[in-house]
Amino acid sequence: MPSPNLPDFHDVLAAAERIAGFAHRTPVLTSAHFNERTGAELFFKCENFQKVGAFKFRGACNAVRALSPDELRRGIVTHSSGNHGQAVALAARLNGARAVVVMPDNSARVKVDAVRGYGAEVILCPPNTPARMAAVQELIERHGYREIPPYDHPDVIAGQGTAALELLTDQPDLDLILAPVGGGGLLAGTAIAARHLKPGIGVIAAEPANADDAARSFRSGRIEPAARTRTIADGLRTTLGRLNFAVIQRDVDDIVTVSEKSIIDTTLAVWQRMKIIIEPSCSLPLAALLDGLVEAKGKRIGIILTGGNVDFPAFVRASQEIAE
Amino acid sequence: MPSPNLPDFHDVLAAAERIAGFAHRTPVLTSAHFNERTGAELFFKCENFQKVGAFKFRGACNAVRALSPDELRRGIVTHSSGNHGQAVALAARLNGARAVVVMPDNSARVKVDAVRGYGAEVILCPPNTPARMAAVQELIERHGYREIPPYDHPDVIAGQGTAALELLTDQPDLDLILAPVGGGGLLAGTAIAARHLKPGIGVIAAEPANADDAARSFRSGRIEPAARTRTIADGLRTTLGRLNFAVIQRDVDDIVTVSEKSIIDTTLAVWQRMKIIIEPSCSLPLAALLDGLVEAKGKRIGIILTGGNVDFPAFVRASQEIAE
Repeated sequence: MPSPNLPDFHDVLAAAERIAGFAHRTPVLTSAHFNERTGAELFFKCENFQKVGAFKFRGACNAVRALSPDELRRGIVTHSSGNHGQAVALAARLNGARAVVVMPDNSARVKVDAVRGYGAEVILCPPNTPARMAAVQELIERHGYREIPPYDHPDVIAGQGTAALELLTDQPDLDLILAPVGGGGLLAGTAIAARHLKPGIGVIAAEPANADDAARSFRSGRIEPAARTRTIADGLRTTLGRLNFAVIQRDVDDIVTVSEKSIIDTTLAVWQRMKIIIEPSCSLPLAALLDGLVEAKGKRIGIILTGGNVDFPAFVRASQEIAE
Repeated sequence: MPSPNLPDFHDVLAAAERIAGFAHRTPVLTSAHFNERTGAELFFKCENFQKVGAFKFRGACNAVRALSPDELRRGIVTHSSGNHGQAVALAARLNGARAVVVMPDNSARVKVDAVRGYGAEVILCPPNTPARMAAVQELIERHGYREIPPYDHPDVIAGQGTAALELLTDQPDLDLILAPVGGGGLLAGTAIAARHLKPGIGVIAAEPANADDAARSFRSGRIEPAARTRTIADGLRTTLGRLNFAVIQRDVDDIVTVSEKSIIDTTLAVWQRMKIIIEPSCSLPLAALLDGLVEAKGKRIGIILTGGNVDFPAFVRASQEIAE
């Protein structure tokens, strides 16, 4: 079934224009150490240095700036327990719009404070999907807010695709591009940009083995619910979005799954070797290469490092559990 | 008493020429967050991205490349339990010389492996100064090796000064430059470069309160031994070198001391906010600013971030002790 709503490369280009001057053009780093360990030439697109510390700002900013002046005046609502809430809060503030972020009432205090720090109002709700949807719906109906969902939205997908657009502008000769997959916003945007700029490129995603709904969906052909989600990769616990899945089915070559031990080891190895902070969710593509799950030898490979917002106490606890 | 051996600015320029193409020209980063918290404009010279993950490579590389072809042929010896050993090992390898590093036999396995990984031979000795000196002396007498000490040497000091030279080339209008102080190699080199390029600049060092021998020496006018050295800032546990102290007395304005809690909090804040890994030893200048120990408001301040080699388990243990 063709989906007329699916964003395409022109939407990614339009997004790049909309967010120019708002989002950072992040650097692409290399690492002799990881090149040696993989036998490949790796190019890391560093979205950990993006505003709010994650690629999420690209999609949120594009979606906010695609609104009409009247919509901006009315205000924006979203739900998030993570980076998307901060991204919408900042994008709204930079564009003079009011934002309300619905967050589960068990959210870490530091995350609630971060969203408020970017100037948004936070409304807490019970930590389940019906409660969250009801809270968002009520705000839309009462105030006429526009909703910017975290991934299942054409403007969000197109915005996330600008990271791959920049990476392939800086390094046009990639054989392969890798991204992690949670809701699928980054992966869908990456696939759209990469397939257009270099039709023969390989596009592969990596997902935690402990939250492997995208890999199962990719094989079964329909969106499978997340069964277990006990993973340190907290950005990847979500189920695939509808639009995202349609793009992924069409444009992605494979989805591989990575163990918790590999996620933690690789996160720490990047900290130690590259001297940059990445969050566990973005270690997965590199972990897949180091584990030999993806053929890397002799290839030029782009990797989107998605963010740098680390819950250090949680990371230490998970490392200790794995070590036991 | 004038010291004819003290390196000067011309030695720093000569060092810059010698290490060009060997050492990285590291980036200078800024942080809106820390600017806001200090009321200053901060420029971070990122030696955590230097080869071997620390500024130490500059001094070691300069000292190795200042040797004659005959000296290089005979080989190099040094003693180190930390970054200097790796720096000498790599500098020697890149210049085709044999290196032997004397290390205390209680050194962490990962550090011994790192030195060996750069191609040097490691000789273990009991963890005390007489044993170490005897081991080095025996190697010099038996094999004719040249010694490259970790900080008390004109070529090492001049090499370390190239970081400030680059920083002040990129940002000539600094009011103040800050560095941590341990043996004093970086601080002396920084002071020489900064005083020459901008005579009116302030040069201030920061030291752990738990290893405050440099601050006490600065006030008493003679080199005081380190009394306690229980600090997470493992790069700063050493006593001042003789040449280093002569330069510091002449060119440094003040040495302030920082608590263990501030060192740990600031290290973590840099990880979280700037998304870069710094080792605890380089958090001290920023910690001093955040604690209000140095007048910062309205100033343009350069900070040397000295390295990024973190012992994560030790950092977690120290954080937990402080929290108790």
